[in-house]
Amino acid sequence: MTLDLATEVGYAGLNIEAVARRAGVGKHTIYRRWPSMAALLLDALSRVWTTDLDYRDTGDVGADLREQFLRSAPALSQPPIGPVYRAVIAEAQSDAALRATLHERFLATVEQSTFDRITRAQRAGELVADADLRFPAEVLCGTLYYRWLLSTKPIDEEAVNSLVDMFMAAYGTGSRS
Amino acid sequence: MTLDLATEVGYAGLNIEAVARRAGVGKHTIYRRWPSMAALLLDALSRVWTTDLDYRDTGDVGADLREQFLRSAPALSQPPIGPVYRAVIAEAQSDAALRATLHERFLATVEQSTFDRITRAQRAGELVADADLRFPAEVLCGTLYYRWLLSTKPIDEEAVNSLVDMFMAAYGTGSRS
Repeated sequence: MTLDLATEVGYAGLNIEAVARRAGVGKHTIYRRWPSMAALLLDALSRVWTTDLDYRDTGDVGADLREQFLRSAPALSQPPIGPVYRAVIAEAQSDAALRATLHERFLATVEQSTFDRITRAQRAGELVADADLRFPAEVLCGTLYYRWLLSTKPIDEEAVNSLVDMFMAAYGTGSRS
Repeated sequence: MTLDLATEVGYAGLNIEAVARRAGVGKHTIYRRWPSMAALLLDALSRVWTTDLDYRDTGDVGADLREQFLRSAPALSQPPIGPVYRAVIAEAQSDAALRATLHERFLATVEQSTFDRITRAQRAGELVADADLRFPAEVLCGTLYYRWLLSTKPIDEEAVNSLVDMFMAAYGTGSRS
């Protein structure tokens, strides 16, 4: 509901009053649960997005990473998630508490599920046994944000393939190309 | 001058009028060169920062990357660059033209100098001969922005080492650890 409203009126036109009106409740009802518009939006984003965060496990970690990144990337460039997520990230640049919440409530979950998937691959012998995979999980989750937030290039199949290729070249046990 | 003023009054308190007053010129003089506050700040950032963008070439590409990242990272967390750069990035999230300018005027330069440095290493036999290094250059420049913009973790020596280790594990010709 909040995300639909954001799509209709734009992030700049959005406020707690408008959300309350749309929901048919008093604005204090909204304020009781969410201290700010950004917190409310973050919550709405998490609910829509976390349904889509699970990696498959086909036994081919490279393919599973690629599949998940290609499945989630389009959301970044489309309403309702794209513009609202961008606005929350912008807001978080002048609000360290929101930044902490954004990481803790949302991105840490993504990093953890990525870490879990590649750790399973390591146990299965697909990745080198002695590699510490905590930072590589962050690289897998974080690198393409640079492209999204700081350039005009799309998160396309070529970018996703290049990222997964680099990860597999670094840690894969298969023959090095 | 603009960055000093931004540090004193904060990004929110900054406007073209204040900059003009500080510079002792009319505001039209400022507007003639910079269409917006963000454009002016981007220009000021570029001037301060580009002096520091050159990679060393000691013949050890891993060490040179590490050195450059560790040298530039503190700027992100300190005034004048840190908060102003963060504010410009935030502004760019609702302004695609500013985002394009930010990439073209500043980040593309960083990506290119990174690409040049690792391409020299490839020619010197430090990196595998057949690797396409364009995307890896973007990973080297971009990955740590995730940490800076979307988490509360610092860009510390451990993060820099981990990133360079991953890059060298993927493309280095040295023995794989």
